[in-house]
Amino acid sequence: MVSIVCECEHKHQVIVVQFMRYRKIPDETIRRLPIYLRGLLFLSAQEQQSTSSRNLADFLGVNSWQIRKDFSYFGDFGTRGVGYNVEKLTKQIKKILKLDAVHKAALVGVGNLGSVVLAYPGFRTYGFDIAAAFDNNPKKIGKKIRNLTIEDVSNLPMLKKRKINLAIIAVPGDAAQQTADALVKAGVKGILNFSPCYITVPGKVKVITIDIAMDLARLPYYMPAG
Amino acid sequence: MVSIVCECEHKHQVIVVQFMRYRKIPDETIRRLPIYLRGLLFLSAQEQQSTSSRNLADFLGVNSWQIRKDFSYFGDFGTRGVGYNVEKLTKQIKKILKLDAVHKAALVGVGNLGSVVLAYPGFRTYGFDIAAAFDNNPKKIGKKIRNLTIEDVSNLPMLKKRKINLAIIAVPGDAAQQTADALVKAGVKGILNFSPCYITVPGKVKVITIDIAMDLARLPYYMPAG
Repeated sequence: MVSIVCECEHKHQVIVVQFMRYRKIPDETIRRLPIYLRGLLFLSAQEQQSTSSRNLADFLGVNSWQIRKDFSYFGDFGTRGVGYNVEKLTKQIKKILKLDAVHKAALVGVGNLGSVVLAYPGFRTYGFDIAAAFDNNPKKIGKKIRNLTIEDVSNLPMLKKRKINLAIIAVPGDAAQQTADALVKAGVKGILNFSPCYITVPGKVKVITIDIAMDLARLPYYMPAG
Repeated sequence: MVSIVCECEHKHQVIVVQFMRYRKIPDETIRRLPIYLRGLLFLSAQEQQSTSSRNLADFLGVNSWQIRKDFSYFGDFGTRGVGYNVEKLTKQIKKILKLDAVHKAALVGVGNLGSVVLAYPGFRTYGFDIAAAFDNNPKKIGKKIRNLTIEDVSNLPMLKKRKINLAIIAVPGDAAQQTADALVKAGVKGILNFSPCYITVPGKVKVITIDIAMDLARLPYYMPAG
């Protein structure tokens, strides 16, 4: 609701009620928004100020009609002949994904994959700060890696106090569920699970299970025979 | 078209024409099939013979209506009260994704992430055999890692002879495009790109760019405020 002043001689105050067309953004669109955001941040780093859905689609290897449809959910239809403003669109997507603030995350498991996670620049790109790393190996606990001192997993309950409510699980499969249980107890609300097992958590906690091989599994479908 | 024999006394041969209802499987369904396949292989390892869409959904943390919709594209509606046959469904999905044969893949870049890729059991789960590994670092070339001898990237043209037409790029961003160019020249038809850069390839080659941070980027959206 916005209050404006009428342009007539009496300067009547006019109340304008804006009817927002509310449409729930589908999960599939939410899944694609980080893909678009990554591309937009890339274009922004190259000082590109605007982009068309066609350009963005070619660049990202996706469909341009899909991009237009996804963007239409939050009302950005771009400007004909000019396209989308990269900076504005970046801000908009960050806001929708709640990535407009820095999120602290904890890593559990500093093995091969965990070390890659710590070294990976991509998390910072999206505004994540991996602020704690845990392992159960006495040889690793206390060691410094990328400005973080590896902590004992028995310290996981401290996450609540440190206001870390996101966690990345990179432990072996047989330790995944107990790690998830400890994280949930520590107040964690979102888990990115890289372990080769599925985990069960209460409904209020969101888990995304990742398998780095999964994307390779849909390549043969698209490849020409022979 | 099937030929059967009529049950009347004359044993007329009857030609039955089956009209297959052809529906193109949408890309989004194809993207989800490896997720289902991974879950089914998991259930199969636990000797579970059948599953309902609800069970599979709870297990994988996805929507059961989505599963039913996706499976309906290839005509498997399950059996009421019994659900889906795990083995049959596994075979069906593997066939659609062309994962019913072993695919050889080459890895380019044996750094941190490349080493994780080589050690990752998930690729074998889907029927991939990482049959060659390349790097440009003279200190790494010739070294053995997991039964593979790291080869010089200048040997990439040999991929055609070795019938390897899938590749995984895990090189730094500034080397990604030239690696992709060399792979395309060597006859590679599908590329899984883990590098932090986008690559351009001819239309006949399928590229999937992966960012392990991308999935974390949609967690805050689903997390309760505060």
